[in-house]
Amino acid sequence: MTMTEPSPAGTATWMSEIAARHLWMHFTHMGKHPAQPVPVITRGNGVNIYDENGRRILDGISGLFVVQAGHGRRELARVASSQAETLAFFPVWGFATPPAAELAERLATLAPADLNRVFFTTGGGEAVESAWKAAKQYFTLIGKPAKHKVISRATAYHGAPQGALAITGIPKMKQDFEPLTPGAFRAPNTNAYRNPQFDGDPEAFGRWAADRIEEAILFEGPEAVAAVFVEPVQNSGGCFTPPPGYFARVREICDRHDVLLVSDEVICSFGRHGTTFACEKFGYLPDIITCAKGMTSGYSPIGAMIASERVMEPFLRPSVSFLHGSTFGGHPVSAAVALANLDLMQRERLNERVLQHEQAFGDTMRKLLDLPIVGDVRGDGYFWAVELVKDKATRETFDADERERLVRGFLPTALLDNGLYCRADDRGDVVVQVAPPLICGQPEFDEIEQILRQTFIDAAEIV
Amino acid sequence: MTMTEPSPAGTATWMSEIAARHLWMHFTHMGKHPAQPVPVITRGNGVNIYDENGRRILDGISGLFVVQAGHGRRELARVASSQAETLAFFPVWGFATPPAAELAERLATLAPADLNRVFFTTGGGEAVESAWKAAKQYFTLIGKPAKHKVISRATAYHGAPQGALAITGIPKMKQDFEPLTPGAFRAPNTNAYRNPQFDGDPEAFGRWAADRIEEAILFEGPEAVAAVFVEPVQNSGGCFTPPPGYFARVREICDRHDVLLVSDEVICSFGRHGTTFACEKFGYLPDIITCAKGMTSGYSPIGAMIASERVMEPFLRPSVSFLHGSTFGGHPVSAAVALANLDLMQRERLNERVLQHEQAFGDTMRKLLDLPIVGDVRGDGYFWAVELVKDKATRETFDADERERLVRGFLPTALLDNGLYCRADDRGDVVVQVAPPLICGQPEFDEIEQILRQTFIDAAEIV
Repeated sequence: MTMTEPSPAGTATWMSEIAARHLWMHFTHMGKHPAQPVPVITRGNGVNIYDENGRRILDGISGLFVVQAGHGRRELARVASSQAETLAFFPVWGFATPPAAELAERLATLAPADLNRVFFTTGGGEAVESAWKAAKQYFTLIGKPAKHKVISRATAYHGAPQGALAITGIPKMKQDFEPLTPGAFRAPNTNAYRNPQFDGDPEAFGRWAADRIEEAILFEGPEAVAAVFVEPVQNSGGCFTPPPGYFARVREICDRHDVLLVSDEVICSFGRHGTTFACEKFGYLPDIITCAKGMTSGYSPIGAMIASERVMEPFLRPSVSFLHGSTFGGHPVSAAVALANLDLMQRERLNERVLQHEQAFGDTMRKLLDLPIVGDVRGDGYFWAVELVKDKATRETFDADERERLVRGFLPTALLDNGLYCRADDRGDVVVQVAPPLICGQPEFDEIEQILRQTFIDAAEIV
Repeated sequence: MTMTEPSPAGTATWMSEIAARHLWMHFTHMGKHPAQPVPVITRGNGVNIYDENGRRILDGISGLFVVQAGHGRRELARVASSQAETLAFFPVWGFATPPAAELAERLATLAPADLNRVFFTTGGGEAVESAWKAAKQYFTLIGKPAKHKVISRATAYHGAPQGALAITGIPKMKQDFEPLTPGAFRAPNTNAYRNPQFDGDPEAFGRWAADRIEEAILFEGPEAVAAVFVEPVQNSGGCFTPPPGYFARVREICDRHDVLLVSDEVICSFGRHGTTFACEKFGYLPDIITCAKGMTSGYSPIGAMIASERVMEPFLRPSVSFLHGSTFGGHPVSAAVALANLDLMQRERLNERVLQHEQAFGDTMRKLLDLPIVGDVRGDGYFWAVELVKDKATRETFDADERERLVRGFLPTALLDNGLYCRADDRGDVVVQVAPPLICGQPEFDEIEQILRQTFIDAAEIV
């Protein structure tokens, strides 16, 4: 039974009000609403989104690292409708549907080496759950049942279900939900800016960071460790790129200890770095890829775990099943939309576009380094972070109060008011991230840079 | 890189072959393919699905307890397309979209009492994860952080992510993935057929089964227990209906020990029992409802946790956030399709239809009791199970070999060959379940009964 007071439907106020009263938003402080109206996004077109007052906002983060092909693509909408009319739902539980089978084959073709086995989910968190569960059962099947633990990196986000959340390296996101699934342990990430002792010697930093993963494996005992989960470029903390040599060394370490390497590409795949899968861009071969978001450009929910033939082999033995699945994983409409999105991305050469423009995007973002509040600009492809600091010379970060004022107070509102939707966060230090649709070019890079510049100048006044 | 041999696209063989080689199906013994071709479902219309040879199969289980309104509903397809064109994706992370806000308001209106707060997911497993996480943080926020454990019932399925899987009561589904999220404990379910000591006194059975939940709470300590998870009618094991008085007593027990009652209605809601939410049908008021599947009739993936104002209250306090969410939860296209599906169900009075026909459906199913192999027929609404037994007089169940031959060998193939898609399982004893689209009537009940009859007669020959 709703408690909403009856008020005229269709008005801006009404939509914002029912959202405040009934829509429990994700990762949101609900108590500030309805005193502060819930922003309502009503439509999208190309690189832009529009709020209920019709105001244009540049979508600087592709929805949530999702909308690779941009908003309002009719061909994707039409494919959804056509598949829904033909076969709107059937589960991939012992059955195939044409879109699910074709998409599995397409992803196997696009994935490196013999990563040929595609287990579908509805999103990234479930893909990470699936990968951990597959790793556990894999080692049980090959006679090493003690190998069940995983290593991941500090500050990394790998999802919110209680297995994926255990792998997530952000203590604040976990503390109210402990105990989580046991067996997930942390190693350092590749935050070069916060490891100035390696300034000027990135190879040494890469060796050190990779070796800390080996150290974590040794701490837990290689005979107890199943997998290492890494993002090609780590999102949380702000676009930590891999130092040279890092992934080659991580791969060697995994091989040495018979540990599966899981490349969590929920954000980094489908062109975000100019290649379908980012492991290709960064030159390493994982045993499992997890992916989601960009596969459909977000037009319909789907995710996947893509495993090598080596991982699959014991699951093909007599009477063995991977006792895992979900109703909506590999949904026929989502799979059909994904196929159409991959067609579109190929036809419009969006991967090539990212490779052609990434240098210019980086150069444009680095202009911000002339501001005293900007400590670092880092990223790759169409995925960039700006780290804000209190003191540029010492790299001093903001204290808790200042972070609260900046990250949850000033920045999100100011950025939106200035016409840019992007992401301010302090899961590590204070960073603002941009990851626009892959159809963007220099005019959008410039608009992003100009809005960030003005907002950061204003931000410096309030802290 | 795919290893599939190039073969002519578009042929039945090709689709089945790429499925076998690349589509890692859920809960499936992949090793039997491609020697045994993967069945490919290509389209659906009304109560029927069609395989790639054009053969009609009656969809006796609504996809997977999902397709309430039947297959091929153009109006749902058109709404998906229209919303995708307007705004295909935007996350509900601090923002609302019109379809997500309206659907939250609609669900709040449909849900009982003050269950007004709707947290969206992409499906049922994530809804269960969300409910457990919400229960944990709720008690932390109100100053009882030790209350984190949950009680669920033997053989119940609550999802596959490693939190939901911990709540699931099927040891075989869990053993290869242990350790799971700590803190989930089991009580008996309401399997009356396997508790013959209560034959003729269902009230006594209800008291006993409810009291075993209290016993489990006391075993763990009420000060450590956050929630009890129950399905209105338990799916796994085969449609265990609640004995009279059961839920009233479970509610009292939860109140006595300050434990949240979670009604896991992923299967039972949206008309499956003739009401939008099944707690209404069975006369109890939970603190949280989890739901998914039927909300869109499966046309697009979505799920939800619907919480009472009591549960929400501490999350509204200053600076508090429920640190949980997912990219695709509350997807605008899925939400728009859900609204259209709820409109359609209301317009076609599908709830009323189920209430009018459920008695006849049950009567039709109970005709099967004349077969020696049929031990029990039970269910409610459009959700029925037939339990197969070796000896009807003693209720003796089949041994492991016989179950393997029946459940994974004979039944699924024979049922499909005879034109019925439904579900044979032995997560408890051997049951075959039917749950057809809510548009079904007596002709379909008869067809289901006749196909089951012939298949069971044949099954009796092979065990």
